[in-house]
Amino acid sequence: MSEQTAIGILGGMGPQAGIDLASKIVAQTKVKRDQDHIPTILYSDPLIPDRTHFLLGDSTVNPGNEMAKGLLNLERSGAKVAGIACNTAHSALIFDQTLSQLKEAHSSLEVLHLIDVTVEGIRARHPSAKRIGILGTKGTYHFRLYDDRLEAAGLLPLRPNTFEHLEEAIYHSDSGIKACSSPVSDVARQLVFRSADQVIQQGAEVIILGCTELPLAVPEATYKGIPLIDPGLFMARALIQAVAPDRLMPLSVA
Amino acid sequence: MSEQTAIGILGGMGPQAGIDLASKIVAQTKVKRDQDHIPTILYSDPLIPDRTHFLLGDSTVNPGNEMAKGLLNLERSGAKVAGIACNTAHSALIFDQTLSQLKEAHSSLEVLHLIDVTVEGIRARHPSAKRIGILGTKGTYHFRLYDDRLEAAGLLPLRPNTFEHLEEAIYHSDSGIKACSSPVSDVARQLVFRSADQVIQQGAEVIILGCTELPLAVPEATYKGIPLIDPGLFMARALIQAVAPDRLMPLSVA
Repeated sequence: MSEQTAIGILGGMGPQAGIDLASKIVAQTKVKRDQDHIPTILYSDPLIPDRTHFLLGDSTVNPGNEMAKGLLNLERSGAKVAGIACNTAHSALIFDQTLSQLKEAHSSLEVLHLIDVTVEGIRARHPSAKRIGILGTKGTYHFRLYDDRLEAAGLLPLRPNTFEHLEEAIYHSDSGIKACSSPVSDVARQLVFRSADQVIQQGAEVIILGCTELPLAVPEATYKGIPLIDPGLFMARALIQAVAPDRLMPLSVA
Repeated sequence: MSEQTAIGILGGMGPQAGIDLASKIVAQTKVKRDQDHIPTILYSDPLIPDRTHFLLGDSTVNPGNEMAKGLLNLERSGAKVAGIACNTAHSALIFDQTLSQLKEAHSSLEVLHLIDVTVEGIRARHPSAKRIGILGTKGTYHFRLYDDRLEAAGLLPLRPNTFEHLEEAIYHSDSGIKACSSPVSDVARQLVFRSADQVIQQGAEVIILGCTELPLAVPEATYKGIPLIDPGLFMARALIQAVAPDRLMPLSVA
């Protein structure tokens, strides 16, 4: 692997999200044979402390410290660029701590930012869209994970009227996506659709599935004609672009 | 991750097989929350030389050397036990070279053997079955990948009458599983079924899907009432058993 630049994935938050990102990298790489694929290392550490618990003040342990250890491990294994398969991990409080630990360790690993990659992807693929629906966890809204960056890009973030449907869709102990992801329950899917309806009523022109669980429940490219944005797909493409742009699969614009 | 034993996966042969094994580890782990999952590192190196080419004498580069490098990398990253997501890589010529390189490097990584794990799994789950159908690539048959170990266990290995159907199902440049895996083409599935029919006609009581591509094409647990054995599923369970036996999901016997 030493002769070629490898992609690193920090996963485990939850584990399926990292695997999903690895799978998207394979799917988005243009190959004729196995050997044309890009060396990729997935470091799946489910012991990284819960991001939302920390942000909400339920824990004082910043997950960024453990995340930095995983990223340094990826760099030692040969990764030159890395992506983190978790939306909430990109909150400034956590992501900045991660980067500061990397800097202290004199790391030269390039860590792509999921939210930046997503906002850039929306502007490139949907240049006329101004009203952007966001579906995610309570933490996503509370910490304005997408809002600030969308506004900085001149876009208008929209939220569902209630966050409860999505919380239930993601976390319900029986029917939630975390508890039951293959296949996702119809109950969970319907709850996601109800939240999508609420941002569509506010005029959303595209909708971000802003939690790694949501694209598992709704793999469709559109809902009622509105493009659904999977940040993981944009991250997969940005990682390929960083190391082997000639092998990036052409993307059909939705 | 340092506090807990991690599972290592050597993948990239092809990349989807390693991802598939990672996914099966997640699915076979009994958890209540993300943090109950087992730390897992997937080192996906598609640049590992083609195993079949080497075995057939088309290349003199033993892939075992590169495989050992990947396994040592996994060990350095924290893996205590590892699985290799490729059937052909377990041919003695390659696997023994891999282990010899690990020994030279004073590695203490435990590397599970896919074929052993599969034969043990068949004996445990299907104790009365004696006639075992094997579906795989030409190399699988030529190098008696499963035959010797099945015979050593007192079982009778059975082969399809012709290997061409499976070669076409796996390698065809348009409809083959390597070229087109999501979804797999119906042509490829039907070719796998025709080969399965041939070993069933010889009295197969269980059928091993002995190439990592085959379970992607035929995820069903049985075909015409005959249990289909996915070696990757047995490997996932053996890896969990090695590091966290208390979290191994109960397996319903088919």
